[in-house]
Amino acid sequence: MPAKQFGSSRRTFLSGAAALSAYFWIPKPVKGYTAAELRASADGDRVRPGISKSDLDTPALCVDLDKMEKNIATMQASLRKFGLPSRPHAKTHKCAAIAKYQIATGSIGICCAKLSEAEAMVANGVDKILMTTANPSRSKIRRAMNIRKSHPSFIQAVDEEQNARDLSAAAKEAGIVADVVIDVAVGTRSGIPAGPGALALAQLVDTLPNLKLRGILSYDGGVQHAKGFENRKERALQTIGPNVETFEMMKKAGLNMEIFSGGGTGTYNIMHLTPGFTDVQVGSYLFMDMQYLAIGSETGDAVFNDFAPSLTVLTTVMNNRFPDRLTTDAGAKALTLNTPNAGVIGEPGMDYSASSDEFGAIRFTTPPSKDYKIGDRLEVIVPHCDPVVNEYDEMYGIRKDRVEVVWQVEGRGKSQ
Amino acid sequence: MPAKQFGSSRRTFLSGAAALSAYFWIPKPVKGYTAAELRASADGDRVRPGISKSDLDTPALCVDLDKMEKNIATMQASLRKFGLPSRPHAKTHKCAAIAKYQIATGSIGICCAKLSEAEAMVANGVDKILMTTANPSRSKIRRAMNIRKSHPSFIQAVDEEQNARDLSAAAKEAGIVADVVIDVAVGTRSGIPAGPGALALAQLVDTLPNLKLRGILSYDGGVQHAKGFENRKERALQTIGPNVETFEMMKKAGLNMEIFSGGGTGTYNIMHLTPGFTDVQVGSYLFMDMQYLAIGSETGDAVFNDFAPSLTVLTTVMNNRFPDRLTTDAGAKALTLNTPNAGVIGEPGMDYSASSDEFGAIRFTTPPSKDYKIGDRLEVIVPHCDPVVNEYDEMYGIRKDRVEVVWQVEGRGKSQ
Repeated sequence: MPAKQFGSSRRTFLSGAAALSAYFWIPKPVKGYTAAELRASADGDRVRPGISKSDLDTPALCVDLDKMEKNIATMQASLRKFGLPSRPHAKTHKCAAIAKYQIATGSIGICCAKLSEAEAMVANGVDKILMTTANPSRSKIRRAMNIRKSHPSFIQAVDEEQNARDLSAAAKEAGIVADVVIDVAVGTRSGIPAGPGALALAQLVDTLPNLKLRGILSYDGGVQHAKGFENRKERALQTIGPNVETFEMMKKAGLNMEIFSGGGTGTYNIMHLTPGFTDVQVGSYLFMDMQYLAIGSETGDAVFNDFAPSLTVLTTVMNNRFPDRLTTDAGAKALTLNTPNAGVIGEPGMDYSASSDEFGAIRFTTPPSKDYKIGDRLEVIVPHCDPVVNEYDEMYGIRKDRVEVVWQVEGRGKSQ
Repeated sequence: MPAKQFGSSRRTFLSGAAALSAYFWIPKPVKGYTAAELRASADGDRVRPGISKSDLDTPALCVDLDKMEKNIATMQASLRKFGLPSRPHAKTHKCAAIAKYQIATGSIGICCAKLSEAEAMVANGVDKILMTTANPSRSKIRRAMNIRKSHPSFIQAVDEEQNARDLSAAAKEAGIVADVVIDVAVGTRSGIPAGPGALALAQLVDTLPNLKLRGILSYDGGVQHAKGFENRKERALQTIGPNVETFEMMKKAGLNMEIFSGGGTGTYNIMHLTPGFTDVQVGSYLFMDMQYLAIGSETGDAVFNDFAPSLTVLTTVMNNRFPDRLTTDAGAKALTLNTPNAGVIGEPGMDYSASSDEFGAIRFTTPPSKDYKIGDRLEVIVPHCDPVVNEYDEMYGIRKDRVEVVWQVEGRGKSQ
């Protein structure tokens, strides 16, 4: 029951997690296997049995498979209760194996934020992709239609008249009728503003010969990390209001509105209150991170403990010679500059700054649980999972302290 | 004369750069070539002639080759004047082609911060590597000695007695005598503190059968970005003081002290004032970034304009529908969260925030030079070059607006 592992403050949460998870403790003698070394004796992505987490070279990106699978099961069960399926965002994990697991366990498909990310997923056997970003160039539009040609379940977002016309032309060239959703903005980032303009765009798409309108998507990035459940709920339902009206207008205009997709991990238990909503684009729930832990849960707990943090980075102590501090081998290139800082499991008194490119700098705010030596290991919960995953070519799947799989992060660096 | 292109403030600097560099202007019609598409018709890393920067898919990491080569020539000439060679840090570019160019134009070798980075350089034909970080595990020590076995110019930093003993044992196992420098700390990050402890470690290394002491390194990461030349100079010479004394102590003890390496781009014109100093570990000078532009130059200019910003990211406008702002396709996964924010070339009134993972958010502080449409391009100077390079698998070498080469960033993600 991961939800019970975590107390009501970051500090309690971190020490509680360590106390209850004995296998977080990492002994010193390490073999320091690289991913290439593990793969040399592996069967596909399955690592030969018996290799411990502590045998990995560091920094290493690890996912606790029991926790991740539990998080996925929890999300599927919760959304089933709310009557909405999930369409998880692959921008979080960028890993085809995980996308396939999500779909196999009940998700209706995945989302991709970038075209090159979608291409990486397709190249590794993932189907049922909703491309949530409009492609702003003709070459990207052509590539998107190439995916659609071989994968009829591919759906492309559009948010502009010219973009829709270009898309229809590219679909015609590819000999297909392409499935399209309108990206209706929440806030000022991507998408066309809610209202008559969005309706007109939907009507245009409906008339274009090589496009098939499927509905809309509306993602509110800003509200996901709003602190406190009631505050988050109020904001989420308020910001989605104009989009609900637009969705209704489109329906009344006789348009095909099968899809009203949006939401995220922070609003997974809120979006079913939105009239017409069809599926939730949850992303971080399977990994969790310090940012999401801080948003608070529906029970009023200051820690958002609906899902357990499964994604961690293993790091090694490089220096212990200066009072009340340690240097580690995981800096900004391994953990990014996101805040809150990484959380050191089992050491709530350690403040971990990754502001140096190559090194982590730990300050003791209270004395640590032991005398750390050079070569000792620490394991940290990452600040913000998506960009951290994007730093690594491989992710290790760990079960009960044993390395079970090495996954390629196929979408890593696919920012185009 | 790149130094004359930049005025005394960020704003003047950015508009001045644009005015003088007409080829920064990027027309709209784009082919959107991916790196794979360019390579398909390339001869090695040389792209077939005639492809424009504006033909690249975005976000794209670009380096202006004329500017980079000029920066390298300026650095080589300056350090020659000061009587010190450079030993540039490959953690900045992580690119073997650039490392080779630096060595071919007079650098005595390169530095690597991580062992996997050094392995990537060696695997791509780079020799003369100073591994500036001690390797904290036996497996890493063994791998380092594997490099040393085939590359006699490889030098390894050590900062601890046990580490030195392990290194000597691994060197013995590899059948070699390994070259070693002591990492003597400046500040509290890596290395052994200056003083008797460092001397004792050097003496131990001198007595260990399979190690050969070559000297010390002392890198002060903190002082590189200290603002104002006089302030920087005072701090740099003060913080290095105890290390100079330690170096002298080691010399007096009869130890072999061929190397006293350290310094960086911010102190390239300061470190020659340090008695005994032998070479400067400059890194960012060839690319530059918003952080280094802000530190101020010896002439008193608020902009550090000794070197021209050659590293940029091309990005595409994704949304222009909301007042006084634009959304682009380069967010934190393309530009990192470093500050100052990316500088939009030719648009000093644009404040570019990359705080969203996938999208850049531009706010207009003054009206832009034109009415930006979806699909238009912008080019930005990166916030901090090292971690931005680490986000990309490829870097495009641009000369006079034409794509000349596609370089693999072989050290990308090599954080182990």
